[in-house]
Amino acid sequence: MPFRTVAFVASEHDEAQKALERMLSAYRHVSTERADVIVALGGDGFMLETLHRYMHRNVPIFGMNRGSVGFLMNAYDEDRLFQRLAKAEEVKLKPLHMISTDTVGRTREALAINEVSILRASRLAAKLRISVDGVVRMPEMICDGVLLATPAGSTAYNLSVNGPILPLRAHVLALTPISVFRPRQWRGAIMPHQVTVKIEVLYPQLRPVNGCADFTEVRDVASIVIREDQTTKLRLLFDSEHNLEERILKEQFLL
Amino acid sequence: MPFRTVAFVASEHDEAQKALERMLSAYRHVSTERADVIVALGGDGFMLETLHRYMHRNVPIFGMNRGSVGFLMNAYDEDRLFQRLAKAEEVKLKPLHMISTDTVGRTREALAINEVSILRASRLAAKLRISVDGVVRMPEMICDGVLLATPAGSTAYNLSVNGPILPLRAHVLALTPISVFRPRQWRGAIMPHQVTVKIEVLYPQLRPVNGCADFTEVRDVASIVIREDQTTKLRLLFDSEHNLEERILKEQFLL
Amino acid sequence: MPFRTVAFVASEHDEAQKALERMLSAYRHVSTERADVIVALGGDGFMLETLHRYMHRNVPIFGMNRGSVGFLMNAYDEDRLFQRLAKAEEVKLKPLHMISTDTVGRTREALAINEVSILRASRLAAKLRISVDGVVRMPEMICDGVLLATPAGSTAYNLSVNGPILPLRAHVLALTPISVFRPRQWRGAIMPHQVTVKIEVLYPQLRPVNGCADFTEVRDVASIVIREDQTTKLRLLFDSEHNLEERILKEQFLL
Amino acid sequence: MPFRTVAFVASEHDEAQKALERMLSAYRHVSTERADVIVALGGDGFMLETLHRYMHRNVPIFGMNRGSVGFLMNAYDEDRLFQRLAKAEEVKLKPLHMISTDTVGRTREALAINEVSILRASRLAAKLRISVDGVVRMPEMICDGVLLATPAGSTAYNLSVNGPILPLRAHVLALTPISVFRPRQWRGAIMPHQVTVKIEVLYPQLRPVNGCADFTEVRDVASIVIREDQTTKLRLLFDSEHNLEERILKEQFLL
Repeated sequence: MPFRTVAFVASEHDEAQKALERMLSAYRHVSTERADVIVALGGDGFMLETLHRYMHRNVPIFGMNRGSVGFLMNAYDEDRLFQRLAKAEEVKLKPLHMISTDTVGRTREALAINEVSILRASRLAAKLRISVDGVVRMPEMICDGVLLATPAGSTAYNLSVNGPILPLRAHVLALTPISVFRPRQWRGAIMPHQVTVKIEVLYPQLRPVNGCADFTEVRDVASIVIREDQTTKLRLLFDSEHNLEERILKEQFLL
Repeated sequence: MPFRTVAFVASEHDEAQKALERMLSAYRHVSTERADVIVALGGDGFMLETLHRYMHRNVPIFGMNRGSVGFLMNAYDEDRLFQRLAKAEEVKLKPLHMISTDTVGRTREALAINEVSILRASRLAAKLRISVDGVVRMPEMICDGVLLATPAGSTAYNLSVNGPILPLRAHVLALTPISVFRPRQWRGAIMPHQVTVKIEVLYPQLRPVNGCADFTEVRDVASIVIREDQTTKLRLLFDSEHNLEERILKEQFLL
Repeated sequence: MPFRTVAFVASEHDEAQKALERMLSAYRHVSTERADVIVALGGDGFMLETLHRYMHRNVPIFGMNRGSVGFLMNAYDEDRLFQRLAKAEEVKLKPLHMISTDTVGRTREALAINEVSILRASRLAAKLRISVDGVVRMPEMICDGVLLATPAGSTAYNLSVNGPILPLRAHVLALTPISVFRPRQWRGAIMPHQVTVKIEVLYPQLRPVNGCADFTEVRDVASIVIREDQTTKLRLLFDSEHNLEERILKEQFLL
Repeated sequence: MPFRTVAFVASEHDEAQKALERMLSAYRHVSTERADVIVALGGDGFMLETLHRYMHRNVPIFGMNRGSVGFLMNAYDEDRLFQRLAKAEEVKLKPLHMISTDTVGRTREALAINEVSILRASRLAAKLRISVDGVVRMPEMICDGVLLATPAGSTAYNLSVNGPILPLRAHVLALTPISVFRPRQWRGAIMPHQVTVKIEVLYPQLRPVNGCADFTEVRDVASIVIREDQTTKLRLLFDSEHNLEERILKEQFLL
C-alpha cells in the first residue's frame, strides 16, 4: 500500500541518530501526528517504545535496525524507502491489557506488546496464586515471578525463562514461571488467547512484588489481571521476504 | 443431545470385559453400524483404537474408564447412562493425515489422532531433514526421531519427550524431537495447524527408520508428509464438568 | 558421639518460639559459646543463619524442623534429645568463599553455604563474563543472573532455575544461569569443586547488578570471585535414617 | 612419555583407510599385540570400538580424527607422530560393568565406556523399576528407556536425552531417562560413581526391552545391574592443549 507522508523517529544511540540525520536529508519528514507511516530507527527496545507512544495514532510503523537484536526491525537501508514501504506487509498485533492493584488499593492500567511480568522485589521469593477465567489453577507458587507473553513477545523475556516460542498465527499466550521453586519444575502453560489471567500476590507486604507491562513498572503489587486488549491494534510493517511470522518460525528452528 | 441407540465396545482386559457384561445386562445394545452413539469401555489406548475403527461412522463416542490413564475417558458409572449421554458435551477433533513413502517407493496413508512419530529402527541414530510448507527448516537433525502431535495427543508421547501441552482451542501442532543429538538441545517448534510437514530420512538404508501414525507402523520409511486431515471429524463425548479441554488445561497446571 | 552441653536457638516464628520454651523447660541450656552442640529450631532459612552465626565455634548443629521446607532439618521431637544427638551422623560441608568488588572499588568477602548468586538490580538484563580458573569460558552472557551452588544448596535456588541436584559426595559445584537470553537456552555447567569462578559484570553502571552469598547482599557489583573455602568446616547433625545425603538422593528421584 | 613401537588401526571408511596407507608408508607399524601405543584413525564410534577391542592390552590409544564428531579424537596430522605421542597426556577412564539377565534366565556381561542404555523393543512403553545400592528409588517408571552414562559418555547419547554433561574429574555418573511418561518430566539423577544401579523390567514379555553397553546389545532383558568396573583401565592419549577434560568443559559452555 502506498504511503505519502512519513515521520522519522530514532533512539538516542549514536548510530540511530546518525541514521536519522541521513534520512532527514534524503526524505521529507512530517510530524508523527500527520504522518501516514512512522519509520523507527533503533533496536527492538526502541521499537517497543515507539509502538507504545504512537498506538493512539493507528498508523503503521516500519522499523529499521540500528541497534541490538532487531527482531521487530527490518534491515537498514537508506535507499528507495517509499517503494519499500509500499511493498511492505502489515502485521497486526494485539497487546495485553494489565490492571494492577497495589497493596494500598490503587489500580493502574497499562498495555504490553511483549509481556506482563511479575517479579519479586526483595530477597524473599514471591508466593503467587494464579487463576484462569475465574478458576484457581495454581493455589500457591513459590517463585521469582511469572509472565504472560504474546506470540510477538514469546522470543523475548519468555524465551529467557524457557517459555515456548509461539507462532504469530496461533492465537495463544504463554504463561511461564520465572525461577519456580514449588511446584518443582513447573514449565508453565500455553493458554488460548481469550483467557483472563489473574495473579494474586500472597503476603505482599512480607514478600513485595513488582509488576511490569513491557517497561511500565508497578510497585507493591497485590494483584494483576491480564487479558488481550481487543480495542488496540498495533500495526507493524515488514519487508515481505522476512516478515515477523517468518522470523518467529525461524527462531523456533534456530539453535 | 438425546441418543436413542447405543453400542458397547470393550477392550480385552478383564475389568473392561466385566463392565461390558454389566452394561449389556442393563441396557439394550445395537450393532455399532446402527448405533447413535458408541460407548467404549477401557483405557486411552482402547479409546484410540475405537476412534480409528469407527471414524467412518461419524457417530460420537463416549469412553468410560476401565484401564490405564484415562485421559480421553469419562468416569465409569453403570447408572443413568442415557441421561448422562444426553448432557455430555461433544468435542470434535481433526486427525493428522500421514503419507509415507518407503525405501522401495511404496506409499501408505494413515490417520493419527495423537501423533505421527518417526523413530530409528537400528542402533544408529536417524538423520532427518524437516520441511515446513515446502521450505527446509532443518537440513539435518541427528536424533532418535521426531513427532508431530495434535493438541489431544500433546499429553501423550509428546509429553514424554518434553513437548509442550497444547490447549484444544489453540489450533496448533507440536513438532517435537525425540532424543536429539544435533542440533544440540533443539526443543522443537509449535506450528500453526494448517502447515504441511515433510520429514525426509537421510541415508535410509544405512540408518533405517520406522514411522507410526498412532499405532499404524510403517517400516523403512524414506519420507513422510503430514498435514491435518480436513475431511474426517472425530466426535468424542465428555461429561461437561470434566471435558477434554478442561483436562488438557488441568494437565498443564499439574506436576 | 555423646554431647554433654547443648545450647538452643530458635527463629522468631511463633511455633519455633513455643518449641524453644518447651525445650528450655525440659533440658539444661548453656550459652552458645560454651555448648558442645547447638540445637536450632526453625526452618531451612533459620538453619542457614545459625550455621553462618556459629561457624567460628566449630561445633555441630542439629536442626529440628519448626518451619518451612526443612531440608536441612531433622524431625521435631521433644523427647530423648541426648540419646538422639549421640546417635546422629555428622555431615561436614564446605562453604563457598566470595570476594566481590563493587563499581567504586570496594571489596567485600562473605561465605555461602547454599550459593553465591548474581542478579540484575534494574529493569535491564545483566551482561556477564564468566571465567573458570583464569580462562574466559563465556565472554558475554545476557541474563537476569547466574549462581554457583554447592551440593547442599543444589536443592535450593539452584533447583528453581533448573540447575542439577548434586549428590553430597560428588564434590562438584553447579554453575547455573538465571533467565538466560543469550546464549540461548544455555543450561549451565557442572564444575569440579576445586575451580575458581570469576564473574565480571559488563557495563555495571548502565546495567547494575547485585551479588548475594546466601543472604549477605552486595550492591553494584563489578566482579565476583568464588571458590570453595578450605578453612571453614560446617558441621551438621542428622538422624542417621534420614541424613542429608539421603535427602538429596531422594530429592533427585522425587517429582 | 616416549613410545617406541606403534600399531595403526583404522575404520573402514575411505578417509580413514587412506590415512592408514599414508601412516603405514611414513612409520614402522608393529602388531597391536606388540605395540607400546595404538593409533586409531576414524571417528568417535571407531575409537569406542578400538578401546573395547584392545582393553585387555592395557596400552594407551591415541585417536586421530578421520570421521564424525571426533570428541575422543585428536586432530589429524601425518607429521612428527612420535614427538606428539611423547608429549601427549594420558587420561584414564573406568568403564561401566553391566550384568544383564534375560527373560529366560541367561546372564551376560559387558563393559561400556560411554553408557549402558535400556530401550523399549516394541511399540509399547517400558515399565522399569530402578534401585540404587539395593534401595528401590523409582518403583515404576513408564518410559522409552533409561541410561547410565560415564563422564566421558555424558556428551554422547546422554546429551541427546537432556542429561547433564559431567566433568571428568567429578567422579559421578548420570542416570537419565529416555522419553519418560511417568513420573512426568523426571529429569534423572546424578549419582556418586560408587553406586550399583539395578534396573528391573516390569512385564518383560508384554513390554520387551533391549539393553545396550555401548554397542553390545542384549535382547529381552529382565534386569540389568550396572556398576563402575574397578579392574579395567582405559588409557586414552590427548594432545595436551586440547585434552578430554578440556573438551568436556568446553562442551558445557558451548551452545
